[in-house]
Amino acid sequence: MKLYDCATAPSPRRVRIFAAEKGIELDKVQVDLGSGEQFAPEFRALNPDCVVPVLELDDGTTISEVLAICQYLEELHPDPPLFGRAAEQRAISTMWNNKIEQHGLTHMRDAFRNSAKGLRGHAITGPHDVEQIPELAERGRQCVVAFFDRLEHQLDGRAFITGDEYSIADITGLVLIDFARWIKLEMPEGAVNLRRWHADVSARPSAKA
Amino acid sequence: MKLYDCATAPSPRRVRIFAAEKGIELDKVQVDLGSGEQFAPEFRALNPDCVVPVLELDDGTTISEVLAICQYLEELHPDPPLFGRAAEQRAISTMWNNKIEQHGLTHMRDAFRNSAKGLRGHAITGPHDVEQIPELAERGRQCVVAFFDRLEHQLDGRAFITGDEYSIADITGLVLIDFARWIKLEMPEGAVNLRRWHADVSARPSAKA
Repeated sequence: MKLYDCATAPSPRRVRIFAAEKGIELDKVQVDLGSGEQFAPEFRALNPDCVVPVLELDDGTTISEVLAICQYLEELHPDPPLFGRAAEQRAISTMWNNKIEQHGLTHMRDAFRNSAKGLRGHAITGPHDVEQIPELAERGRQCVVAFFDRLEHQLDGRAFITGDEYSIADITGLVLIDFARWIKLEMPEGAVNLRRWHADVSARPSAKA
Repeated sequence: MKLYDCATAPSPRRVRIFAAEKGIELDKVQVDLGSGEQFAPEFRALNPDCVVPVLELDDGTTISEVLAICQYLEELHPDPPLFGRAAEQRAISTMWNNKIEQHGLTHMRDAFRNSAKGLRGHAITGPHDVEQIPELAERGRQCVVAFFDRLEHQLDGRAFITGDEYSIADITGLVLIDFARWIKLEMPEGAVNLRRWHADVSARPSAKA
């Protein structure tokens, strides 16, 4: 099993943290996104959508998309469970993971990719040229800030995003907060729950993976 | 178990088709998105993100997000499996479901919500006022068209999106194609695989759910 990774990118970091929490050692192959290695024919054969992470199985099967890779690793190594211990908890973990993706990461990506100088003509991941929309970058920033508030409320009275147990939702949330710093979006000063939780999940050894 | 639904909206249709394929009868409560019922305090208590579908369990637990609801229903009613029969197949189904969401539905939503007259000030789902960006509507249209091409290639030599078996990815794909018609985006004439597949999945009784 081999993980096509990029040590500095947010999406593969989600898989690295997930694997670290389970004690899974993954062989990693670095893909140099800066020089455009994701658009080379060799990488396109692994993932025509030209993004990392990709998990390549020993039989050559390739799995892309963070959630698909994490669910696969969860099936192979159920302990400790990172999607919850019963059907209902699993639904809540998947729900929160999706909410953070849709209401957090999607807007964060909009904010970053539509403003970074190095991404002109690449406002969307993938093989097609897409021009930046500065107005969308600004909208993205506002939506990320609004979502910080949503998380602050969710974390009121909860140790982790879905309750008492650390889950995939915390991993996605952590990566969102740290990604937001790239464009100088910080958790609000008054967001005491969010800040307490961020300190806790950042202190876990997996956060360095 | 109760499904908060809107008979005309794309997202809850994904859950209705999923349940129909499994022969699950769900009690449905219609939420009138046109009159803004999703913003009323009663509905916000079920889902602060103000979107359908929401599955309410008998103990009052609420599950939102299509994928979370479908995975929960899959655990309760494993047959017929709609996420694949083994770990690897499940990863591929989840992967394709996510790809269609991210590279298809997200852009489709951008195209629709940033252009529909009735959605001025509501360019993003949820409780916050967000103005439309016409340039984003146009970008969304182009991305949906590009994704039709991606699906056309994927369906070459495959009965269904992930292979020989109908899965959640086909449901999400079907809903994407039909949603695209709202803004007059049709499958390209020459997309013979996509058109053959769309006819097949549309002919299943579940498509009317």
